[in-house]
Amino acid sequence: MQISTTASATKEAKLWGGRFEESVTETVEKFTESISFDKALYKHDIMGSRAHASMLARQGLISESDADSILKGLDEIEMLIDNGTFVWRTDREDVHMNIEAALTDLVGEAAKKLHTARSRNDQVCTDLRLWCRDAIDNILSRIKRLQVALVMLAMKNEGLIVPGYTHLQRAQPVLLQHLLLAYVEQIERDAGRLVDCRVRINFCPLGACALAGTGLPIDRFMTSDALGFTAPMRNSIDAVSDRDFVLELLSANSITAIHLSRLGEEWVLWASEEFGFLNPSDSVSTGSSIMPQKKNPDPMELVRGKSARVVGDLVSLLVLCKGLPQAYNRDLQEDKEPVFDSVKTILGMLEVSAEFAQNVTFNWERIKSALPAGHLDATTLADYLVKKGMAFRTSHDIVGRSVALCVTSNCQLQELSLDELRSISPVFDEDVYEFLGVENSVKKFSSYGSTGSECVSDQLNYWVAKLGING
Amino acid sequence: MQISTTASATKEAKLWGGRFEESVTETVEKFTESISFDKALYKHDIMGSRAHASMLARQGLISESDADSILKGLDEIEMLIDNGTFVWRTDREDVHMNIEAALTDLVGEAAKKLHTARSRNDQVCTDLRLWCRDAIDNILSRIKRLQVALVMLAMKNEGLIVPGYTHLQRAQPVLLQHLLLAYVEQIERDAGRLVDCRVRINFCPLGACALAGTGLPIDRFMTSDALGFTAPMRNSIDAVSDRDFVLELLSANSITAIHLSRLGEEWVLWASEEFGFLNPSDSVSTGSSIMPQKKNPDPMELVRGKSARVVGDLVSLLVLCKGLPQAYNRDLQEDKEPVFDSVKTILGMLEVSAEFAQNVTFNWERIKSALPAGHLDATTLADYLVKKGMAFRTSHDIVGRSVALCVTSNCQLQELSLDELRSISPVFDEDVYEFLGVENSVKKFSSYGSTGSECVSDQLNYWVAKLGING
Amino acid sequence: MQISTTASATKEAKLWGGRFEESVTETVEKFTESISFDKALYKHDIMGSRAHASMLARQGLISESDADSILKGLDEIEMLIDNGTFVWRTDREDVHMNIEAALTDLVGEAAKKLHTARSRNDQVCTDLRLWCRDAIDNILSRIKRLQVALVMLAMKNEGLIVPGYTHLQRAQPVLLQHLLLAYVEQIERDAGRLVDCRVRINFCPLGACALAGTGLPIDRFMTSDALGFTAPMRNSIDAVSDRDFVLELLSANSITAIHLSRLGEEWVLWASEEFGFLNPSDSVSTGSSIMPQKKNPDPMELVRGKSARVVGDLVSLLVLCKGLPQAYNRDLQEDKEPVFDSVKTILGMLEVSAEFAQNVTFNWERIKSALPAGHLDATTLADYLVKKGMAFRTSHDIVGRSVALCVTSNCQLQELSLDELRSISPVFDEDVYEFLGVENSVKKFSSYGSTGSECVSDQLNYWVAKLGING
Amino acid sequence: MQISTTASATKEAKLWGGRFEESVTETVEKFTESISFDKALYKHDIMGSRAHASMLARQGLISESDADSILKGLDEIEMLIDNGTFVWRTDREDVHMNIEAALTDLVGEAAKKLHTARSRNDQVCTDLRLWCRDAIDNILSRIKRLQVALVMLAMKNEGLIVPGYTHLQRAQPVLLQHLLLAYVEQIERDAGRLVDCRVRINFCPLGACALAGTGLPIDRFMTSDALGFTAPMRNSIDAVSDRDFVLELLSANSITAIHLSRLGEEWVLWASEEFGFLNPSDSVSTGSSIMPQKKNPDPMELVRGKSARVVGDLVSLLVLCKGLPQAYNRDLQEDKEPVFDSVKTILGMLEVSAEFAQNVTFNWERIKSALPAGHLDATTLADYLVKKGMAFRTSHDIVGRSVALCVTSNCQLQELSLDELRSISPVFDEDVYEFLGVENSVKKFSSYGSTGSECVSDQLNYWVAKLGING
Repeated sequence: MQISTTASATKEAKLWGGRFEESVTETVEKFTESISFDKALYKHDIMGSRAHASMLARQGLISESDADSILKGLDEIEMLIDNGTFVWRTDREDVHMNIEAALTDLVGEAAKKLHTARSRNDQVCTDLRLWCRDAIDNILSRIKRLQVALVMLAMKNEGLIVPGYTHLQRAQPVLLQHLLLAYVEQIERDAGRLVDCRVRINFCPLGACALAGTGLPIDRFMTSDALGFTAPMRNSIDAVSDRDFVLELLSANSITAIHLSRLGEEWVLWASEEFGFLNPSDSVSTGSSIMPQKKNPDPMELVRGKSARVVGDLVSLLVLCKGLPQAYNRDLQEDKEPVFDSVKTILGMLEVSAEFAQNVTFNWERIKSALPAGHLDATTLADYLVKKGMAFRTSHDIVGRSVALCVTSNCQLQELSLDELRSISPVFDEDVYEFLGVENSVKKFSSYGSTGSECVSDQLNYWVAKLGING
Repeated sequence: MQISTTASATKEAKLWGGRFEESVTETVEKFTESISFDKALYKHDIMGSRAHASMLARQGLISESDADSILKGLDEIEMLIDNGTFVWRTDREDVHMNIEAALTDLVGEAAKKLHTARSRNDQVCTDLRLWCRDAIDNILSRIKRLQVALVMLAMKNEGLIVPGYTHLQRAQPVLLQHLLLAYVEQIERDAGRLVDCRVRINFCPLGACALAGTGLPIDRFMTSDALGFTAPMRNSIDAVSDRDFVLELLSANSITAIHLSRLGEEWVLWASEEFGFLNPSDSVSTGSSIMPQKKNPDPMELVRGKSARVVGDLVSLLVLCKGLPQAYNRDLQEDKEPVFDSVKTILGMLEVSAEFAQNVTFNWERIKSALPAGHLDATTLADYLVKKGMAFRTSHDIVGRSVALCVTSNCQLQELSLDELRSISPVFDEDVYEFLGVENSVKKFSSYGSTGSECVSDQLNYWVAKLGING
Repeated sequence: MQISTTASATKEAKLWGGRFEESVTETVEKFTESISFDKALYKHDIMGSRAHASMLARQGLISESDADSILKGLDEIEMLIDNGTFVWRTDREDVHMNIEAALTDLVGEAAKKLHTARSRNDQVCTDLRLWCRDAIDNILSRIKRLQVALVMLAMKNEGLIVPGYTHLQRAQPVLLQHLLLAYVEQIERDAGRLVDCRVRINFCPLGACALAGTGLPIDRFMTSDALGFTAPMRNSIDAVSDRDFVLELLSANSITAIHLSRLGEEWVLWASEEFGFLNPSDSVSTGSSIMPQKKNPDPMELVRGKSARVVGDLVSLLVLCKGLPQAYNRDLQEDKEPVFDSVKTILGMLEVSAEFAQNVTFNWERIKSALPAGHLDATTLADYLVKKGMAFRTSHDIVGRSVALCVTSNCQLQELSLDELRSISPVFDEDVYEFLGVENSVKKFSSYGSTGSECVSDQLNYWVAKLGING
Repeated sequence: MQISTTASATKEAKLWGGRFEESVTETVEKFTESISFDKALYKHDIMGSRAHASMLARQGLISESDADSILKGLDEIEMLIDNGTFVWRTDREDVHMNIEAALTDLVGEAAKKLHTARSRNDQVCTDLRLWCRDAIDNILSRIKRLQVALVMLAMKNEGLIVPGYTHLQRAQPVLLQHLLLAYVEQIERDAGRLVDCRVRINFCPLGACALAGTGLPIDRFMTSDALGFTAPMRNSIDAVSDRDFVLELLSANSITAIHLSRLGEEWVLWASEEFGFLNPSDSVSTGSSIMPQKKNPDPMELVRGKSARVVGDLVSLLVLCKGLPQAYNRDLQEDKEPVFDSVKTILGMLEVSAEFAQNVTFNWERIKSALPAGHLDATTLADYLVKKGMAFRTSHDIVGRSVALCVTSNCQLQELSLDELRSISPVFDEDVYEFLGVENSVKKFSSYGSTGSECVSDQLNYWVAKLGING
């Protein structure tokens, strides 16, 4: 059976059309429609309608048999939409009206009672909160997958020392594991923000109706429970007019996107000829239509680039809500595309980052041979002098002069003779060489959270356990 | 004949796949594809290919018969796409590769020569510049239509005095025509920005190839001319790496969008019960699913709201381009959706605003009866005192005290007796009543650009002539 | 005693200047300085240095007497800054170097040991987290004050019915208390976001040093405890490179700002001549330099307007962090001005909103006389029909036609005769008049969270108790 | 003589205070003041007042002697402000009222006539347009200085071949000159946008008064001419309510900022140990407080970072203006700080970029030794095959396989023997070696705008001439 297919037939009256004498122009209909995107809410819209119909029946507002017709009709419609055989009609404006009108086509009079004590205003907020709740759960699961991929990449590269950078200048040697775990920490906080956001989202606007509630004897706690919400929202005006829950979700996504843009930048750098630290496999690289030798880390470039649209989506929604008086305004219809786009994009960014992490190898040889450059052990040398009792600022100055000597002599710190070192400060002694060289330098780190081997091993174990990885 | 339909067959080799041993993963393919949106460029891509092929033939880089095959094949492909029978393939990545591969399917070997002395880097910039140039022409035409609609609305309401507001407080009486022409002025500057932007866009990147140009004897001036560009771009690296032309277009659109959001706000206010100045016809209004009495000015709410996505699109593109080194980076693939969305949205906003303007009436009775409130003639009274020789600051103070007296007595300025006025200042004389009342007040305005009837009439004539309206 | 005043004397060597042969140019010094704004961190910088010095002493890294000198010196410096007699020097770059150098001027050699096992990278993050923690506490207290002001305003206006709007069209009657409490709900969620943000902020980066930690035997748990942090951060690279805590704070502020912009918009509307519902007292209004009669609700216009800079600050920080590789980059110096500005602005917006709320009266007469317009009781009439057993969609249609009749007859629903009503539907009966008129309409609301008197009274009591207001 | 110093004395009445009975609260005064930032407009405010007073006198609206007093008073005030001895008073709100009130203190009654036929609404727009006009001229001059610096840097490095990148992967060899000129091109378009913006800015709002013009016989053409404007604005409502001229300037600045962020990124990369192409001198580098060996390219990091605030400023202003009804709203006071900040930042970014360019050297040795890696000559090889008559796609494939062979053999293309090449394609011949190697490759480029030596030399000459550089 095929319903809702008569779009080209004589114009159907709008459900709100009682007092209207003229139908809207085509331009207006096209400009104001939302069905082209809000159909994405169909599952949550039907879920909400089921809960609402059951409640109406239990409260005696509709008969049990009407409720049965409605529920069966909704099942059928869901199936048609799932199958792709449902025909969405622009003249029916939005997902709510499309489903309600199709329900009327299908089950007749009973369907006309479904909208009792409900408005599209509270309906769309309910749908969107349910949708966002699911979206958060999906993002959380993708965050975890990326964390697992990063931790496993770390496990595969135990002991690999890489340059740590500040200002993109070589600063100190760090274990690659330490660096990878920094990203794991960052996106863990991203997950925390989403968990907090989910708590605030999970309140039920259904029953707020247009903006003021209703005089009909509905039970908002019943629908709230049925839909898995914590409780109904306390204030009906607030319930239909605020979109802070979407703003919060898009803010959280923006921060995640920025984190991933940094990972993208770093891996693009590391995959360059100049760094040469990272080899993406062919399966996550693309080539050039004109330069046959190219192998580009496109997925991570796009991870970096797509952060932009996540930020843009947030800005759109902030601009949208600015300066709107209470309660619902039609502007708010524009809340959906940014949230859909933001969620879809962040899911893709997380997924492809994980896949990239699973398909790269680090170039141990190249990294090892590159390490001596950049005097990465200079700070360790300053610590040596401090341990000998020198004030830090003085030690900093002395090491600075030692580095200057290296630059002049084009050598590394460990290649300076003790005499040369002593010409700068008499505090230097034979034991200084235990502090020089990248390997020695890393060994010396010992503070909590530092790049010292044991500290990093502790961190790694923490994450392996937390993420439930089987080493 | 049906081409490019073998998507589900054995995997086709990528055109850049020479040195690659593995094909990209599905996740990566899906994440990096652009065909779902860049197919919008197909007409301009084919246009560019035609120019390129003709040039290659004239320069002897391909044979005339190859060029013929290519041109015929392109015609066929364009027809298929126009008809909706062309099958876009995600595994062919983007619009360029889809068309080139389909061309190869169609005309064989000759097609493999089309990409001579061309890269997707310069190709996509060429396509996008052509697309933006057309977009600007469309927006300009819509701006003009909105200007015409506003001017005609002004013509229909000659002589109607409305309150002028500052701080949304009634300030001075103005002619409605004057207010409507303010919007005409604002979007005229929007048009000016687009015209300037078009000049900068209209340079040809084709032939910049990947980033460095080519050693093959191409003629960039020929392709530039053929495509209606002013000249080829001077620097090949600049040509492929910069997106400032899109940023400029999206900036211009954002300013237009902000202008329209202000019109939207004003008309939403004016259509409220409280103002009651503006009646949208049923054909540009919508109703409520729960409140039968509602008649909402949705199109203008959405005009206001949709300004948000135009701003969001601009921000996306700014974030995207920030901090990218030369030359092309894959991030730049993300430039297209914001520009498509921005242009589509601004076109819709302009169109619906014009249609709304054509379908509203001003409520003369209501406005007239509302005018006495708010002491709109107070500044005219101050001018009266200045004309009598009083310093402006003193006159301002005296009028302030006159208004305070009105507030206490709950009357209007013109209802104060001469004695009452003289109790505040002896300068008041019988002739003061020629300056009081809204009608008198408007009559007194005379400065260039003011709301005085003659000034406004001059302005209106200016616009009628400029826009070619037949009164 | 006056220190640090020798700015114009011979150039002091930079503390990091060991290997440098030339000093930076004036342009660069001016462009890269941060002292002009980061001096706002001085209290938190000194707080951090105290904790650090005490820890160094307990760990034996500096002597007790050095620690004493340092602590006394810091006390003195703090006093000088508090007094405004401290001279900030641009050539000393930033707040950290200014204080450390002044300490050296003051206590000599001991000061040179303060920076042991510390870098400006972890120092500035520590300062900024402490600063943000305090900022959040201040904002939370201002949010509460605004909530109290709104609740007290509600208490002063018990029983006042106002039009509830959707699409800025009159929709249903609501109690003013209900509307005011909607704002209280919204900013309560704003507070919730800040509380969550504070939890994530409250981890200690100190001891992460430049990026890798240190080999010196520091005790990060001791400094973390001393500064009231929950724990030291687990990963030193993460600790110095991420600014997500600022992004989260600025996101939270942006959402609050959007909420307040909506309150601003609403009160500006309500204070207009056309609405006439709200009278701001002279103490929160301003006048015009040219129009003596004007009384403008400037504070709420600026509340609306200043939301823009809070959003701008967030965008700045998002753009700033996009695409930066690990770990610290100098770009991050730019994180401070947006956060300072955002916090200062939001504090001002909250404060002035509360003050405005304390200085407005609602115009009961005007509101009461305006209420009959707009058919606010239409939905109640539809509910009446539903209670009589009619399907909602049918009732919606019938009420729509009743409203159309009112529009034609220029009357209100309650003014229709029973015959007139019955001509539309036979279901109407005498008891219908108990549902008509705004007063009756409000009485009928009964659902949880609705605008019914008892529901609103419950809500109000909830907030009075929660906020500790003495009624 | 010292004026305006009585801030602590009894409260002065506001100039608009006529009908007000209470003065505003301190909170409101502090929140709404603008003097802390709009005093930056003082020169342009005084300039505007001079023109206005002269016009008033010529039109007979004030006496010549009043005009003289006003002009002398304004001279004195300007001198006091220049000297830093003028006392700005918050209770006088803004720059306009501070100057007018000080003028009254100074010259008495005459000053009270200055505000005749003027409002702060048109006054501030006039000031701001004048300010922006000067700002544009300053930015244009800085853009030129940066162009000169880049061109001179190019001249110093004639013949230096560097890798050209796409996707940050080595793509093709380019002349450094070519790359530097790409930036010159980009900021040339930035200049073009500013020039266009200046044309639109240069219209005079003075005389629009509050919003409606005036009935007094002013001459707007005279003031417009005196202030160097093209003409008075045509519509008084438009004149006071629109801020599109600021939006356009901030859009232009944002695009410039994005361009500079890309230069910043590139130079930060090139200054890294891994690239090692660029040596900033000590005079434009800074060191680390903990790592003595560091030499950081901070100025360019900050150029990249400060792009963020320029974008944030634009967003602030877009959000600010969104949804404001006509005409002036107090929100618009918030337009000034973003424009001041944007202009100051962009001036600094341009200046420091030029200074950086003057203080870097390219590391010829390092670059030269790095060039062989990355198969930069691959595209030239493909062109070779095309010249031999092969279809481009085929040649692309063959070169791809040649590169694969190099990767396996760990050699460069020019190191493949002819036999090896012929094993891939028989088309290869002895002459292939003239196309291989980076030097040969660059020599082959010949298309207009390409990196070929002659093309680049032509471009360089073009810029040398255009910028008036004496080589």
